[in-house]
Amino acid sequence: DPKLKVFTGNSNPALAQEIADHIGVPLGNARASRFSDGEIQIKLEESVRGADVFVIQSTCYPVNENLMELLVMVDALKRASAKSINCVIPYYGYARQDRKARARDPITAKLVANLIETAGANRVITMDLHATQIQGFFDIPVDHLLGVPILAKYFLEKGLDNIVVVSPDHGGVTRARKMAERLAAPIAIIDKRRPEPNVAEVMNIVGDVKGKTAILIDDIIDTAGTITLAAKALLEHGAREVYAACTHPVLSGPAIERIQHSPIKELVVTNTIPLTPEKRLDNIVVLSVAPIIGEAIIRVHEELSVSKLFD
Amino acid sequence: DPKLKVFTGNSNPALAQEIADHIGVPLGNARASRFSDGEIQIKLEESVRGADVFVIQSTCYPVNENLMELLVMVDALKRASAKSINCVIPYYGYARQDRKARARDPITAKLVANLIETAGANRVITMDLHATQIQGFFDIPVDHLLGVPILAKYFLEKGLDNIVVVSPDHGGVTRARKMAERLAAPIAIIDKRRPEPNVAEVMNIVGDVKGKTAILIDDIIDTAGTITLAAKALLEHGAREVYAACTHPVLSGPAIERIQHSPIKELVVTNTIPLTPEKRLDNIVVLSVAPIIGEAIIRVHEELSVSKLFD
Ligand SMILES: Nc1ncnc2c1ncn2[C@@H]1O[C@H](COP(=O)(O)O)[C@@H](O)[C@H]1O
Ligand SMILES: Nc1ncnc2c1ncn2[C@@H]1O[C@H](COP(=O)(O)O)[C@@H](O)[C@H]1O
Repeated sequence: DPKLKVFTGNSNPALAQEIADHIGVPLGNARASRFSDGEIQIKLEESVRGADVFVIQSTCYPVNENLMELLVMVDALKRASAKSINCVIPYYGYARQDRKARARDPITAKLVANLIETAGANRVITMDLHATQIQGFFDIPVDHLLGVPILAKYFLEKGLDNIVVVSPDHGGVTRARKMAERLAAPIAIIDKRRPEPNVAEVMNIVGDVKGKTAILIDDIIDTAGTITLAAKALLEHGAREVYAACTHPVLSGPAIERIQHSPIKELVVTNTIPLTPEKRLDNIVVLSVAPIIGEAIIRVHEELSVSKLFD
Repeated sequence: DPKLKVFTGNSNPALAQEIADHIGVPLGNARASRFSDGEIQIKLEESVRGADVFVIQSTCYPVNENLMELLVMVDALKRASAKSINCVIPYYGYARQDRKARARDPITAKLVANLIETAGANRVITMDLHATQIQGFFDIPVDHLLGVPILAKYFLEKGLDNIVVVSPDHGGVTRARKMAERLAAPIAIIDKRRPEPNVAEVMNIVGDVKGKTAILIDDIIDTAGTITLAAKALLEHGAREVYAACTHPVLSGPAIERIQHSPIKELVVTNTIPLTPEKRLDNIVVLSVAPIIGEAIIRVHEELSVSKLFD
């Protein structure tokens, strides 16, 4: 039976350790460090010959460093004769650059997919891609895991009642519906409109939120502008209290300050992206994706082993 | 006649401007900036449809940022229908990771070549690759320019006499010979040997340096350990004075302190890599590669235009 090995870059070593623990294997002995001039040095300190290798690396901040670490690591594993190289990318950076929104835009989400394949990856396991179309940017299998079950479970266990699940924009309605189904709750949608150019946006709310416990759900919370304005609008429209939830807590720039000054009661996120100490507010709850990623790795490894029977 | 356009990333805008001035075209209107979360945002503010585009970007520190800027820019240019995309990489980073020096090493110089082709480059113009084999890592044309003529011209005009050109190691002998030919001078080679494990290296010198003006030449000076030890050894072996020269002044970590405390009279470098203010010592002379890169671009553009006649 080919060996299952788990390696990690520097983007999220705590999650990688949790995943390895869940699977019941030690983390592989490899280090990504830097030469004096900032170039990445990869030291693979154990054989990977014939192994099914899983590299855990989120392409969160610093995205270019983390992405290059992943690529150089894949190159090293490939040249060291790994049987299969499976990139586990809990947070897939550059996902918002997934189309030409303006003339002459790059499509960096597709470029990154090409780079990962070029480096030598055989498969990708990722979570809550900003656009599910990004799966089609790859010509290798992509396992796409969802954060909603983990987030919904938390709220179910909390035993809140009179819930409404709210999508902060039209793009997130499908996600909100999945969450609402699990909570047996209705949905509402924030409908941002700019009545005239250079006039402030108006937050209309489609659906009934009066007297309800609103749970805002998004895939990514980045600068937290949308989510904090949405929370305010919900309270103004009579919601009783507002929770917010997302899979990927990017939380860049003014995000933490905005959350601190917002009426959001609790922000529930996952650990696809690690929170630096200054981001660990008392009302931010972090749920672990290690169990579902660990299970996915076990499943993929079984599949790879079974297929070997037919080779 | 298809248009020639020159764009730049953020690695070396001063050199890019000089190159554009040499050619006699304005720098193209494009900016590489960062979103709040550190992701690269490319704004191409002019049409490149049907143009032969030259992107100037050294992959010096911060190498991963600069490389990704180049790749995303190439992606944007490709999707904006540029006729040809020519990457001008005055300093090609990761060139020292060009082989498996140790078991399970990555070959990052090859990975980077693959990434550049995958992004959509049609040609590369670069200077003094650490290993000329790296040209073969590409399946697209590579124009490989040399720094020696520029460096030799400087020393010729200086009118030094009784020169010996010194290679700091065996790997650099070919380069030293080229320099020596232009200066009509003999060569010498530093022959570092470790007599026993855990005993300090001994610097033997092959060739005659007594009473001579030694010019140490290398492609890259990084932490400046080799070059400053070599300078000391040359003086100990009777050289009258020591100059040092290189194409690529990486100058990382302890380099500047080492140079300050070394007997090197003058360090002559080129501007393939910009020197941050703290690196601009009085005895560091910077020569410009803009003319030879500018000429190479003009030649390539002519070639691309002529070949159009046969299309
Ligand atoms: N890292 C980023 N931060 C903020 N905006 C981004 C980022 N990457 C891409 N975008 C922009 O976000 C928009 C796409 O987001 P969305 O409409 O939510 O899919 C496009 O206009 C992109 O230019
Ligand atoms: N950025 C770097 N800084 C220092 N050493 C490096 C760097 N990249 C690669 N190397 C190492 O340098 C050696 C190759 O240098 P050389 O023998 O001069 O070709 C190899 O052992 C590499 O592992």
